Amino acid sequence: MTSEPAGPEDPKPFRIGLIGHGTVGGALAELLPGRADHIASVTGMRPVITGVHTRSNGTSFEDVLEGADLIAELIGGLEPARTYVLQAMAAGKHVVTANKQLLAHHGEELWAAAREHGVQLRFEAAVAGVVPVIRVLQESLAGAHVDRVIGIVNGTTNFILTRMAETGATYDEALKEAQALGYAEADPTDDVNGKDAAAKMAILARLAFDTPVHIDDVTYEGIEHLTGDDMAYARDLGLGLKLLGTAERVAGGISVSVHPAFLYGGHPLASVSGPYNAVTVESEAITEITMSGPGAGGPQTASAVLGDVISAMIPPASTPETTESLAIIQDVESAFYIHLEVADRPGVLAQVAQILGLQGASVKSVVQKGLGGNARLVMVVHPLLESRMLAAVELIAGLDFVRGRPRVIRVIEETFE
Amino acid sequence: MTSEPAGPEDPKPFRIGLIGHGTVGGALAELLPGRADHIASVTGMRPVITGVHTRSNGTSFEDVLEGADLIAELIGGLEPARTYVLQAMAAGKHVVTANKQLLAHHGEELWAAAREHGVQLRFEAAVAGVVPVIRVLQESLAGAHVDRVIGIVNGTTNFILTRMAETGATYDEALKEAQALGYAEADPTDDVNGKDAAAKMAILARLAFDTPVHIDDVTYEGIEHLTGDDMAYARDLGLGLKLLGTAERVAGGISVSVHPAFLYGGHPLASVSGPYNAVTVESEAITEITMSGPGAGGPQTASAVLGDVISAMIPPASTPETTESLAIIQDVESAFYIHLEVADRPGVLAQVAQILGLQGASVKSVVQKGLGGNARLVMVVHPLLESRMLAAVELIAGLDFVRGRPRVIRVIEETFE
Repeated sequence: MTSEPAGPEDPKPFRIGLIGHGTVGGALAELLPGRADHIASVTGMRPVITGVHTRSNGTSFEDVLEGADLIAELIGGLEPARTYVLQAMAAGKHVVTANKQLLAHHGEELWAAAREHGVQLRFEAAVAGVVPVIRVLQESLAGAHVDRVIGIVNGTTNFILTRMAETGATYDEALKEAQALGYAEADPTDDVNGKDAAAKMAILARLAFDTPVHIDDVTYEGIEHLTGDDMAYARDLGLGLKLLGTAERVAGGISVSVHPAFLYGGHPLASVSGPYNAVTVESEAITEITMSGPGAGGPQTASAVLGDVISAMIPPASTPETTESLAIIQDVESAFYIHLEVADRPGVLAQVAQILGLQGASVKSVVQKGLGGNARLVMVVHPLLESRMLAAVELIAGLDFVRGRPRVIRVIEETFE
Repeated sequence: MTSEPAGPEDPKPFRIGLIGHGTVGGALAELLPGRADHIASVTGMRPVITGVHTRSNGTSFEDVLEGADLIAELIGGLEPARTYVLQAMAAGKHVVTANKQLLAHHGEELWAAAREHGVQLRFEAAVAGVVPVIRVLQESLAGAHVDRVIGIVNGTTNFILTRMAETGATYDEALKEAQALGYAEADPTDDVNGKDAAAKMAILARLAFDTPVHIDDVTYEGIEHLTGDDMAYARDLGLGLKLLGTAERVAGGISVSVHPAFLYGGHPLASVSGPYNAVTVESEAITEITMSGPGAGGPQTASAVLGDVISAMIPPASTPETTESLAIIQDVESAFYIHLEVADRPGVLAQVAQILGLQGASVKSVVQKGLGGNARLVMVVHPLLESRMLAAVELIAGLDFVRGRPRVIRVIEETFE
């Protein structure tokens, strides 16, 4: 329960019982207060964590369950996680879990219990972190005949392989770097040997093909034996090397596996680098959909958990009333590309640069090419207000050595670099 | 109604009234019968099209509405689409629509009506075809504080720009090619001038920022004025040129726009080519998610409509009982990379190739590098059964000129090329 009694105007609380308070549980507890107002305005209920059970904090699971509308199972492992999830559903509570091994081992039992008790069992965070592949397979593609799911579903190994390819590092060097940056655990065994990815592929195959798939059905192989040589030859052959999960229809049934594999450069997964995850779903009617994003990390995985919590709170596909009345701003900052045809004579670049400088535009890169008596001057400038850029262009257009109309195109920079 | 009365064992029909029978409506009518059994086994209801109204087929909208549980509005345009959608919801029917202009003009009125009448108004197909960006923004990211949405949301212009970049074609040449291939309409005005993308960005901004956004709030600019020169300089500067929609938080409010823009090569949207669409959602907690896939096409857009129909039929996040008992196959076909260290002497390649040939492996590419008295022989072979590949490798490993253990790694080929 919230510590203060709710006033007549306050939204009703939606009570979350948190099981486990590690990386993801801790991140959820940190994320929730900042989003609770917004969620309350959208759903009419205010999510609050009303109890936390860990292996050692002295609060029993039963006490947490008693006061909760939903259990967030973030304790990991098979037991007591399985027992807790079954108990929660039997008590009529929704469950959100990030526990891939639990679902890859006991999924059918747990999903059957959810159907039996009429509660939701959501698990977006169990596969590919915040990449919404579970929801897309369960909902968007519920009507599709899926032919193949192929994914980079382990961020640790993708980081290691990316570093081996980019820097020529050995497997051991790249693993140490991953550990130093927090992308690999002290004991990375289940990541690098493919077992983590195998559990995730079992879940994806179950959803894609509507057939039971246990982790023991998945053949898997890790990346420990890969060498810099493999990377070098991959480049020679125009290939990229990834740890890929594949679940596909084959003659007589389906095949589900995790292996190091080469991808041709044009494949949508070939460009997924670093600790990112990505999944491509192929089906004749849809061609293919690819989704990518961070595959791990406390805040990212907690965001996936929170998305599931909100889905359990509200009926589907309502488009709630707007909760904001934000002003629509027309004049915004951007980086720009400027293309000028100019007379090829001294001082041209200096005059153009001076006008740009006066408007606050700082030049990032310049390409100049002679062209008979004329030259083409192409620049990219760092972000500034569009109005100032256009003012600079008017001034530049008026210079006597400028031929024709300057051309200006926006340049997008990454927010998170 | 179905033509035959349902027997006691038959699933109950879920009746779809189809408004419009053009590219998408026609594709939906074609797609549905093949998927109806599967959908019935998952949902317990069998979707059937019980009526079709077009501008000219003589069946009134009211007659179609009367016999339907859900209206699929695929007629396009503002009127009579708006009136039909309002009438359907007032009659308590769910609505699925692919009509971006309708939502970008009248979204608030329509969403309010859906809330008032307690029905679902779903519109995945209105933005980016089968790419599930609407569902992800409404559900997966309902708890996220979105900072920016940036998208390639018009496949026609992305195809034209891709061809200009790849082949050096002029805008006019690339447009003609797009028209010949069916990626551009006879009158491509609303695609190439940015208006189509602007409507889609208005919808995405509304969902991302919970604030009303009308198409008139979106500044837009097309690609008609872009030249081969811009493409060439983009390459010199390490940039890709795309028609991008951007919706972002800025000081004082939000900004929503569509412009040609350059992207740095590492941006997740930079590699999206041809008639594909892709959307990146950025938020501090999630970093970023990118989704990509075909942005248009009858079967693809119809698949998005069908996903919405199924969502309207079933409660959310149930994981239905498995409907298949597919065999899990271990020995499947794959292309392979083989890495051999061999003595550098005549006949080596011939003997290796002979063994591969006897097992049915056809060589796709070979790289051989001398290394003192030894050589490295790296090959990629076309798909064959894993068991046959491993048999070949055992034989090759036994050859007297082979040093060390051969290394074998799978190579993924594209299903749809």
